[in-house]
Amino acid sequence: MSEEYVHPAEVVGQSFESAPRTYTERDVSLYALGVGAASDPLDAGDLPFVYEHSAHGHPVLPTFAVLLAGGWGGDVPGLRYKITSLLHGEEYLSLERPLPPEATISHAGKVTAVYDKGSGIVVVFEGTTRDVQGNLLARHARSLFIRGLGGYGGERGPSGKENQPPERPPDITHRERTAPNQALLYRLSGDRNPIHADPAVAQAAGFPRPILHGLCTYGFAGRALLRHFCDNDPARFKSIKARFAQPFYPGETLVTDMWQAEAGRVLFQCSSAERSVVVLSGGACEVV
Amino acid sequence: MSEEYVHPAEVVGQSFESAPRTYTERDVSLYALGVGAASDPLDAGDLPFVYEHSAHGHPVLPTFAVLLAGGWGGDVPGLRYKITSLLHGEEYLSLERPLPPEATISHAGKVTAVYDKGSGIVVVFEGTTRDVQGNLLARHARSLFIRGLGGYGGERGPSGKENQPPERPPDITHRERTAPNQALLYRLSGDRNPIHADPAVAQAAGFPRPILHGLCTYGFAGRALLRHFCDNDPARFKSIKARFAQPFYPGETLVTDMWQAEAGRVLFQCSSAERSVVVLSGGACEVV
Repeated sequence: MSEEYVHPAEVVGQSFESAPRTYTERDVSLYALGVGAASDPLDAGDLPFVYEHSAHGHPVLPTFAVLLAGGWGGDVPGLRYKITSLLHGEEYLSLERPLPPEATISHAGKVTAVYDKGSGIVVVFEGTTRDVQGNLLARHARSLFIRGLGGYGGERGPSGKENQPPERPPDITHRERTAPNQALLYRLSGDRNPIHADPAVAQAAGFPRPILHGLCTYGFAGRALLRHFCDNDPARFKSIKARFAQPFYPGETLVTDMWQAEAGRVLFQCSSAERSVVVLSGGACEVV
Repeated sequence: MSEEYVHPAEVVGQSFESAPRTYTERDVSLYALGVGAASDPLDAGDLPFVYEHSAHGHPVLPTFAVLLAGGWGGDVPGLRYKITSLLHGEEYLSLERPLPPEATISHAGKVTAVYDKGSGIVVVFEGTTRDVQGNLLARHARSLFIRGLGGYGGERGPSGKENQPPERPPDITHRERTAPNQALLYRLSGDRNPIHADPAVAQAAGFPRPILHGLCTYGFAGRALLRHFCDNDPARFKSIKARFAQPFYPGETLVTDMWQAEAGRVLFQCSSAERSVVVLSGGACEVV
């Protein structure tokens, strides 16, 4: 009997709810540094996200909300896999209101689909995060790709070709070099998968060296969108979605290309400047 | 009546004891990144300090212990000063045993001296850190310089000329560039003095921009000593002492010059490569 398996009919519909947990200003600033904020410490636009006594208070990067969508640890009846077989597929996040710098929250969600991609499966779950007063803070949809479990002839699911950028050159391009140890910092915000830290584990999983968390590049992209389309005001940032297309390595330069689409909507994609490979594709962001 | 004052006779002898508090593996790794560990994430010597599942476990940088010497928040009867008038003077630390990656500890100590330096005062306190079982982990001696409160004709105290390095060139020199946002990361380990983050506060205190925490440069120096004289083994690192001579700015290159003195003793000093200024002087480290 294989130690890894999926029984889709059992997995779909499983629901979960996290116990209430509290995040603090320290978590907020640590996350912001983890996704590259204030790499120039004199940048007045970035400083408030990492400094709790700034003249602009302590706003929270909108993409911080992805950390709150915990609760699905992969411990779902009907599914067993190796942690190093897990890759992020897509992440959608919408915000009902700016996140406070400290809060006690809980998250509830369920598995809504399992797709057979041949070389692996995609598990989709959707959920909501609320504060202890019951106020809706964020909605989430996340798909995870698990290598090696597909090929059982199940439904393939959507192609993931939505939100293709236009043919024209980007309206805005934002370039930012990640730190060589960016993943070691980002992982302290919660995702301790060793594939992002341990060279031996990364190599066993088929990568030349540890890869950056997909959600870390997502956070860099969110900062670029927030800066160029929301004047760094989280209240103007409504939603973000992107697909994790290829691995990105810490130390590379992340290039975020952005196109203004219809009013209030920006399409984007991210690539590695050094390898000219698209790493985040099909990106869309709603702004006010 | 002045809002800032010191009454030395009242201050000396004041004792304090902190409530028990717990540090976690996350705190240990965050501190290590804060003092520059694993800036090269593939450096096998550094990785264990920031990665809890390394092949060498999760050793704790010896200088992490300086974070445990809390409890003296400056709220001492007989002393009132502005937080931005506070600078670190000297820090001595000795370790009884390697620190565990997680522990609940408490700290007890007392003020042992107040010295009048003319342009300010030096307040010295000494203390010990123990785990909840009562085992001694570390001994501490810390002196703080408070600008603007001196000149009342009190005792000047020691000259601080001990541990002068020999005339010969250093036996080993270790150079390390700090990150421009090093202070923003280091402060998440506890010292939130705005002089290290806020350009306006730093300028009001007479600095062109935020300065790095003295204890952050101290941590960089400790890492250099641990690497070159202890083969990165915290069990071989017995004590460290240094004086904070001049401010150091995040983004500068810290040069640690080290001289093997008598057996088991290393003298060191640190300087800014860009400004050729000694920032940590009179350094001494006991090793096995």
